[in-house]
Amino acid sequence: MDGPPPRPWLPVSIDGVQLLSKSCFGDTEYHILLTDMQCVWEERMASADIETRAQELNRRLRAPVKAFFSHLSEVVRPALTGSDGGTNISVTQQDGNIDMKLKSELAGLPFHWEFHCTPAPVTVVCSQLVRPLLAMSFLLQRQVEQLGGLLGRKDAEIQDYRENGATLSRERLQTEVFEERTYRENFMSKALPLLASDQSDSLQFDAGLQQLYAAVLSHGSSRKRKLSEDPSVEETPVDEPDTTCSLGASKADSGAAEEVQLEAAGAKMADRAAERKPLPSAPAARPPAKPKKKKVGLFR
Amino acid sequence: MDGPPPRPWLPVSIDGVQLLSKSCFGDTEYHILLTDMQCVWEERMASADIETRAQELNRRLRAPVKAFFSHLSEVVRPALTGSDGGTNISVTQQDGNIDMKLKSELAGLPFHWEFHCTPAPVTVVCSQLVRPLLAMSFLLQRQVEQLGGLLGRKDAEIQDYRENGATLSRERLQTEVFEERTYRENFMSKALPLLASDQSDSLQFDAGLQQLYAAVLSHGSSRKRKLSEDPSVEETPVDEPDTTCSLGASKADSGAAEEVQLEAAGAKMADRAAERKPLPSAPAARPPAKPKKKKVGLFR
Repeated sequence: MDGPPPRPWLPVSIDGVQLLSKSCFGDTEYHILLTDMQCVWEERMASADIETRAQELNRRLRAPVKAFFSHLSEVVRPALTGSDGGTNISVTQQDGNIDMKLKSELAGLPFHWEFHCTPAPVTVVCSQLVRPLLAMSFLLQRQVEQLGGLLGRKDAEIQDYRENGATLSRERLQTEVFEERTYRENFMSKALPLLASDQSDSLQFDAGLQQLYAAVLSHGSSRKRKLSEDPSVEETPVDEPDTTCSLGASKADSGAAEEVQLEAAGAKMADRAAERKPLPSAPAARPPAKPKKKKVGLFR
Repeated sequence: MDGPPPRPWLPVSIDGVQLLSKSCFGDTEYHILLTDMQCVWEERMASADIETRAQELNRRLRAPVKAFFSHLSEVVRPALTGSDGGTNISVTQQDGNIDMKLKSELAGLPFHWEFHCTPAPVTVVCSQLVRPLLAMSFLLQRQVEQLGGLLGRKDAEIQDYRENGATLSRERLQTEVFEERTYRENFMSKALPLLASDQSDSLQFDAGLQQLYAAVLSHGSSRKRKLSEDPSVEETPVDEPDTTCSLGASKADSGAAEEVQLEAAGAKMADRAAERKPLPSAPAARPPAKPKKKKVGLFR
């Protein structure tokens, strides 16, 4: 496997809303994808946009992005990776968009943040969901076929023993001859009604599928370009190699690492902070290396 | 299974372009979905829009929609279902859209048509691809697990025979003990590199997956509404029950039927033409029941 596996979709519950989330927090930027399986939303924010919004929402805040962004990502990331319920985040939907409002505290003062997620471009939905899911289905279908073939060979072996007079010491060990068509029809008649039940779609994206998703994405099936590679297509597919914050299969360099919870889908992330200069008017950036250390002087 | 199975995605090659197509031609309307797995495009056209465009493209055409639409669908449908290469259709992409231009002949005169397909709303991509594909992956993953369990039981039966002294009459019938983890790792190491090869993504959507797709869609897993059911979301999901031309799992009534090629995913379609009136200025509509019969008088 080349490079670190890509980020997974993680089932999250934010403000009581069940979603799948795929997110990337860089040093002073982020990219969030959310889906309820009816729509997919995203927000990408770079350093300058983050600074502008932070100051709109926190009038007294005067600090470079790096100085508060580590706090923001520290507070938000647990909610977006499913490790906490996002109790300090409220979710609203309006006009087809999803807003998430965060109320936190920084340097002893209230700190507000809002994520404004809009429907993702179709090319992003294709690269992050459609192509990987089709590849997964394809691989699983091949496995089902292969395992059916293996069962046929087991049955042939069993038949040979029995034709030579072998008997079982324990009758309960006897199995029925595997018949692929019968099995499939029986399986479908039981499984399909469950799909239509109240069970959440997102629950279907379980650990086994997450692992397969990561494997598929890291093998670059999503890198191919066809008609849509026409440069006139405005959207940049998320899985394109990205110099900063990437959700896809791009090869991250070996900078600062971020631990992701699912072992199978953990991903490292490039830390290119050193390449970026602080804004001219900003005071010297405080190192975000120890985000738990209380910061002072971010607000005036 | 309730009602007819929904339409499948069919691999097509139009003007040399490899796509998956899902289309619905009603009596005087159509809905087309196309994807190259990098983007998804659609065009929905109702009767009045079709009439306007037909007259723009064919200045001398003076006929109600029904009079030429049966010809149009007869010529286009083979290309959109993969049964011909669409040699009379040219495909161009511009600004992220796909246009298909048809040049045909009707009543002895040239007949032109253009499909203008634009990126589909994300909600449509979710209902037509993301949710069904996730459900398919989920079902296939369950099958893989079950078949692994069955193989374990076969192995236990075989072990019992052998412990009781049974031998094979033909050594080649002997199988290795199935070990799920080893199998999966071995499978993935062989299969994943194939995904990154030049093989077309669309080829992965093979007959077996088409059949599963149809089964999943017809069981309504795609009907559930979550956040996105907010009425402020503009797009109408394609799988909503539709009074006219539907690509999804809606229960079509028993009107005029259309044969779709893949038996597993064939779908009938509602014929509600009788509910619609001809445009006031239009001459009496000719019955489209026998579209192969050459029509006269459509052009002035």
